[in-house]
Amino acid sequence: MTNKKDINAGIIIIGNEILSGRTKDTNTSTLAVWLNSLGIKVDEVRVIPDIEQTIIDTVNIFRKKFRYVFTSGGIGPTHDDITSSSISKAFEMKYGAHKEAFKILEKYYKPGEFNEGRQKMARMPIEASLILNPTSGAPGFYVENVFCLPGVPSILKAMLGGIQNKIAGGDPILSLTINLRTVESEIAESLSNVQNKNDDVEIGSYPFFKAGKLGVSLVLRSTSQNKIDICNSEILKFVQDKKIEIVEES
Amino acid sequence: MTNKKDINAGIIIIGNEILSGRTKDTNTSTLAVWLNSLGIKVDEVRVIPDIEQTIIDTVNIFRKKFRYVFTSGGIGPTHDDITSSSISKAFEMKYGAHKEAFKILEKYYKPGEFNEGRQKMARMPIEASLILNPTSGAPGFYVENVFCLPGVPSILKAMLGGIQNKIAGGDPILSLTINLRTVESEIAESLSNVQNKNDDVEIGSYPFFKAGKLGVSLVLRSTSQNKIDICNSEILKFVQDKKIEIVEES
Repeated sequence: MTNKKDINAGIIIIGNEILSGRTKDTNTSTLAVWLNSLGIKVDEVRVIPDIEQTIIDTVNIFRKKFRYVFTSGGIGPTHDDITSSSISKAFEMKYGAHKEAFKILEKYYKPGEFNEGRQKMARMPIEASLILNPTSGAPGFYVENVFCLPGVPSILKAMLGGIQNKIAGGDPILSLTINLRTVESEIAESLSNVQNKNDDVEIGSYPFFKAGKLGVSLVLRSTSQNKIDICNSEILKFVQDKKIEIVEES
Repeated sequence: MTNKKDINAGIIIIGNEILSGRTKDTNTSTLAVWLNSLGIKVDEVRVIPDIEQTIIDTVNIFRKKFRYVFTSGGIGPTHDDITSSSISKAFEMKYGAHKEAFKILEKYYKPGEFNEGRQKMARMPIEASLILNPTSGAPGFYVENVFCLPGVPSILKAMLGGIQNKIAGGDPILSLTINLRTVESEIAESLSNVQNKNDDVEIGSYPFFKAGKLGVSLVLRSTSQNKIDICNSEILKFVQDKKIEIVEES
């Protein structure tokens, strides 16, 4: 019996373009927000290069370590897209043209346009299940608990709807943000006391600078609205005592 | 003798706010671009939660695996800032008030304002070397090959200048981007041939959508400008043969 709290996920971002700094990763945030809404917590993210052995090793570590694993990137038609073949090797599964994926792509392209590059996108672990792609034809896929999605943020986002019913979530993770016109060191001690009394609520403290003004966002996260409310009222108490202004937006 | 090509780095992003999706990580990109300019390649990034044992384990794996390690986040004054104490444990070094850091902070704040929360920012491995902070007083620090920086992007960026001379880099990694009005599957085969002939140049292919139009950015990366130039001319050859338009901006 696994506790509902134990439903976790790991994300593997595959791609030299993130490691070189050329591209800023936004897929982690997209996946995390979506997973949280399903009651699944992201426990770790790794960004790794387009190197076969690294992909195989990381997938094999993650699929044992986390209930769900999501990979992003490397399932396109070019030479640097090696996720599908690496996943096949990680699962010791045959890599080849996936019948259903081939049919989808053949139908998607005009006659004569389904060239070799495009056919590569049908190659994956042949026993994989597909993740349909409503925007650009080429499907993603999953094997056991590993879900392989593309790196292009808009396409990844569009494909999440298709896997929602493949994933058993937990209690949704709720959150409340309180924005204060203060600096962290003014509230550190009081906040620490509130955290110590409220083990089941994760309290994060994040300084912000906006329109030339300093502030701190406190983020309360828990699966229990009641516990968040208790924590919130304890925070509002010391905020009032210290005459700290609450601001609407961080 | 380590080959210059082997100068690598690993980045550890510490913070629940990234794992929850609330905040999008931009520090990886800042660090990677800066490191590349010093001839240092980022081989792996891990995003981990504010959990002591996870921080200790990850730091201990990374400091053996990579020449340089950078951590971001968790060195502020609040209860969720546990990087400094965790790094002390990873190195089995005494954690306490760092004399020099204490002096800097004492001087930075007005008399009477150097409260307990602020004094926490002086606590770190007592034998650590400081990384000065030109924007907001509180310094970062480094122990051996592990450099600990704050999570706030603007402060992290401002502190990089102070460590440039602490890091021995390699040959700068050069890059060239070619933006094409095409789709990946049209050029996949030709591009694969160019990559096979040019082992020393890393060729990345990244689809983009801009102003309603599709395109592909090809990014050539190498420490040799000559090799990039050769690769570039081979690509321009098939681009011309296929009558593909080159676009200015991706």
